[in-house]
Amino acid sequence: MNRFKALLECMEEEAETLDDGLERLKKQIQFVLEVDRLKGILRQNLVMDRSRQENSVEHSWHLAVMALLLSEYAPARHFDMTRVVKMVLIHDIVEIDAGDTFVYDVAGNEDKAEREIKAAERLFGMLPADQQAEFWALWREFEARKTPEARFAGALDRLQPLLCNFSTDGDAWRRHGVKRGQVIEKNHIIEEGAPLLWDYASCLINEAARRGMLEKE
Amino acid sequence: MNRFKALLECMEEEAETLDDGLERLKKQIQFVLEVDRLKGILRQNLVMDRSRQENSVEHSWHLAVMALLLSEYAPARHFDMTRVVKMVLIHDIVEIDAGDTFVYDVAGNEDKAEREIKAAERLFGMLPADQQAEFWALWREFEARKTPEARFAGALDRLQPLLCNFSTDGDAWRRHGVKRGQVIEKNHIIEEGAPLLWDYASCLINEAARRGMLEKE
Repeated sequence: MNRFKALLECMEEEAETLDDGLERLKKQIQFVLEVDRLKGILRQNLVMDRSRQENSVEHSWHLAVMALLLSEYAPARHFDMTRVVKMVLIHDIVEIDAGDTFVYDVAGNEDKAEREIKAAERLFGMLPADQQAEFWALWREFEARKTPEARFAGALDRLQPLLCNFSTDGDAWRRHGVKRGQVIEKNHIIEEGAPLLWDYASCLINEAARRGMLEKE
Repeated sequence: MNRFKALLECMEEEAETLDDGLERLKKQIQFVLEVDRLKGILRQNLVMDRSRQENSVEHSWHLAVMALLLSEYAPARHFDMTRVVKMVLIHDIVEIDAGDTFVYDVAGNEDKAEREIKAAERLFGMLPADQQAEFWALWREFEARKTPEARFAGALDRLQPLLCNFSTDGDAWRRHGVKRGQVIEKNHIIEEGAPLLWDYASCLINEAARRGMLEKE
């Protein structure tokens, strides 16, 4: 990566103005540059004005804003919203290597976990050890969906594309011939993270089916 | 906005499954849909692979990830990283109405504050009162740059485009004939938020000038 080399050389030339943390800052900046590539990972759904496909960075930002606004719908009493925000911000970084896997793509989902673990090893492995451990922990928590925070983050991760698909007359659903039952099956996990948001989501799904955005069973 | 109307009608039809918070959820969802438009607000700098201009959502996500990784460089002892993340996530939402103003655009910066306040009134005004107040407070704090958190958020807001510009051989700088002195002047505020990151940034700026990405004084 030429641009990394240039940045690093530049840092080293004036290394006397930086303290012993230079090696640490280097790793952090390399990671910040590397994750820029997530802006080029395209998702199946369109942005809401239908002009183009959404990318994974846009999806992640949208989830983070939703976390700020909708955490009150998580049923847990002691709920760490900050951890939700962190999880959703980083949950798709593995797609830089593993690509985005459409939730209704059966074959693609078979080796998804394996591809993503390899990606996490390379990408989180760029970070200083403590931050590497933190990112791994956040990503594993998100994937395992055992804590209230991870369940809520997972709920947002399903609700946001549902809003995009509904707002674009079901574009991605139509292109892939997705059925109402599949959408219910893949999205009912919203309920464990945020029951009220699942009420809302199932209402949206029914309306989507009524309007012909989803195929009949 | 037709898609909002559709969403709301859909919610109302099954209103009996939702509690009294329906009005509140409506406002929150309307806001979530509205901020999708920030994905279409283009910035002057390119994404790092030079394929296209970056948008304000991508910029905001990048800042949030940087906040997670680089908060150790803020000089304050009692430092609320969560508030930094919240500020950077929402700091550009006003651009949906006010547009992005290039930092080196003198005329555009004259009425920037006025345009952005109007935008904040409309956009944050969509939210329930308590969340509206929180978003206003976060945005005002970011703009005022008085707290360590706001100064650090401001530092990231300058450092990220600097990394983009350096990584793209100074594309936006070259197109606008930006001079090294201007870049120093506009970016030295990084120092008050994160002194070490300013050491790094000024080293980058000098190297950019040496490579001809910036015009001579």
